[in-house]
Amino acid sequence: MKKAAKNEAPITLAIDAMGGDTGPQAVVDGVALAVRHGLKAHFLFFGDEAQLRPLLLEAGLTKNAEIRHADNVVAMTDKPSHVIRRGRETSMWFAMMAAKEREADAVVSCGNTGALMALARLQLRMIEGIDRPAISALWPTLRGRSLVLDVGANVEADSNQLVQFAIMGEAFYRALMGVEKPSVGLLNVGAEDLKGHELIRSAARVLRESVPDMAFKGFVEGDDISKGTVDVVITDGFTGNIALKSAEGAARLVGTWVKEALAGTINAKFGAIFMMPGLRKLKDRIDPSSVNGGFFLGVNGIVVKSHGGANARGVASAVDMAASLARKPFRDEVAETVKSVRRRQHQNVETQEAKQPVKAAAV
Amino acid sequence: MKKAAKNEAPITLAIDAMGGDTGPQAVVDGVALAVRHGLKAHFLFFGDEAQLRPLLLEAGLTKNAEIRHADNVVAMTDKPSHVIRRGRETSMWFAMMAAKEREADAVVSCGNTGALMALARLQLRMIEGIDRPAISALWPTLRGRSLVLDVGANVEADSNQLVQFAIMGEAFYRALMGVEKPSVGLLNVGAEDLKGHELIRSAARVLRESVPDMAFKGFVEGDDISKGTVDVVITDGFTGNIALKSAEGAARLVGTWVKEALAGTINAKFGAIFMMPGLRKLKDRIDPSSVNGGFFLGVNGIVVKSHGGANARGVASAVDMAASLARKPFRDEVAETVKSVRRRQHQNVETQEAKQPVKAAAV
Repeated sequence: MKKAAKNEAPITLAIDAMGGDTGPQAVVDGVALAVRHGLKAHFLFFGDEAQLRPLLLEAGLTKNAEIRHADNVVAMTDKPSHVIRRGRETSMWFAMMAAKEREADAVVSCGNTGALMALARLQLRMIEGIDRPAISALWPTLRGRSLVLDVGANVEADSNQLVQFAIMGEAFYRALMGVEKPSVGLLNVGAEDLKGHELIRSAARVLRESVPDMAFKGFVEGDDISKGTVDVVITDGFTGNIALKSAEGAARLVGTWVKEALAGTINAKFGAIFMMPGLRKLKDRIDPSSVNGGFFLGVNGIVVKSHGGANARGVASAVDMAASLARKPFRDEVAETVKSVRRRQHQNVETQEAKQPVKAAAV
Repeated sequence: MKKAAKNEAPITLAIDAMGGDTGPQAVVDGVALAVRHGLKAHFLFFGDEAQLRPLLLEAGLTKNAEIRHADNVVAMTDKPSHVIRRGRETSMWFAMMAAKEREADAVVSCGNTGALMALARLQLRMIEGIDRPAISALWPTLRGRSLVLDVGANVEADSNQLVQFAIMGEAFYRALMGVEKPSVGLLNVGAEDLKGHELIRSAARVLRESVPDMAFKGFVEGDDISKGTVDVVITDGFTGNIALKSAEGAARLVGTWVKEALAGTINAKFGAIFMMPGLRKLKDRIDPSSVNGGFFLGVNGIVVKSHGGANARGVASAVDMAASLARKPFRDEVAETVKSVRRRQHQNVETQEAKQPVKAAAV
């Protein structure tokens, strides 16, 4: 397929229809919902044809949708290494192959995160200069939405990887949200006496010295995520996972309290009737499915991981995200920036080495 | 002072009245509030006499309160090492000395966390067998309140320290909440492919094998904090700080959305009138000052750190906590458990060593 022709063709999304906790129904309904809301794309549904055929018919997905049969499914409990060795007949494998062979512009799956990540690395390869992938998540804030990464691809990240996460996150946020110069912060603790690990401080130094075009704002704390203090929050996968899940848990807790407050007395119930529009909006905001879709950054392709238990609305949001990202140039941008950072770091080292003998002579 | 006499005497609290962001007014008002709510104790206020005298009068604290003049104050920006060397004339120093010399049963301060921790370690010393202190925080949950530690005393913790945190947290929760067998969990990430750092897994093994009396429930995730899945959540100070601040930020975000929903339309405002009791309770629940007070675990004394910007209500909650903990036997319990864990670990090693030669002979 020639490049010019490809750009003119509509976007094609590879949908792994089988892997989620809720089964293919939610996936098909989610795609149908996205289409009803105006998404224009071609869909390749990978999975069991006998199950998918009636679901597509029922959902009215007769145009622009094809079924690609797969005998097997990656289970949520399968080890990534097992899927790499023995997963060739699964819907996830075939969906990823479609992206590899440029038949699809992006992949969406509700399946096993580890397996999806392993297959993405195997088949799509990494962006040049990026050591490890990161999973990024959009989080609602007082000011809009912020991107947090890594939220679970790696338990640890050294300072070079944090720098790479920052470069990827910034380029991705620009592509996704259309913000020219997204602000970036490193997640850290605030107390004076224990300001962070050395590796976070070192990542901050590199970002300041070697990525001059980035709007890097230094350290941010846990509560800055929901405040929206910066557009892009950088951390390792262990901390990011715990930060986001803690925040989700707290949001749900307050949501439960709100429900209790509204249901408390007959007066309260009567009062709630007058507040319906505001309350409905509130419910929408608290609903995690409105911001569903973790994006795999670092691999050479577009892979969106929808939550395994996502409902149709969650899947629709993930599919929308995949479509809006397809063919955006952020991967080239990332490779370019990483290269220039390496050049600058190299120059800094050379400059320091050039200075060394003078110092020694002065002693 | 003899032990019997001391047990009969009322509880005495040493109050560092100067260190917080909001100044002595909030501290004095907080103590007065706690007294109005029924707290019976004797108070030693450490700080500038000229400022404190009129505040105590105004707050009606004429009985059971003494002022102990201090010329200086530890600033929020002072380095702990500086305070250790040069902080002898500060209110915080004197308050800690009162605990050291058993004149006071507990210390409460809104001041510089790092300095307070350093002074507590210097003057009160550590509980036998505990390597490092931890700051614990109470967090509201769906089921009540859970204790999270460490939330900021150390950026890192090895697996031995996590085990010690678990032992301290469990004993402390029992003392504070009157729960006979609090459940304990280690904070971790859930994704199959990246289940936690090795050191967390190793801490889990030790807790399972060598602390048989503990209701240890294994790993919990970020959202389990607000769910109240376990009574005591154990983690290192970096992760704990970020988890709690992320949760606080999210709770505040949802709180803001609730306010917007209520203020949205005239109908909504009218409706809100009927819901006042429920909404007031909700506001109380979201208000972080209702659960104010980080407790320093591991030092040989009772030290409660109130938030630096706490209002009177926050201070009252910290003072209440200090009073309820004074003279509880949990420190002896901690020392005892740590000793028995060491004995068991030692036995395990010996058992393994005893088995070794047999194995070798069999090969």
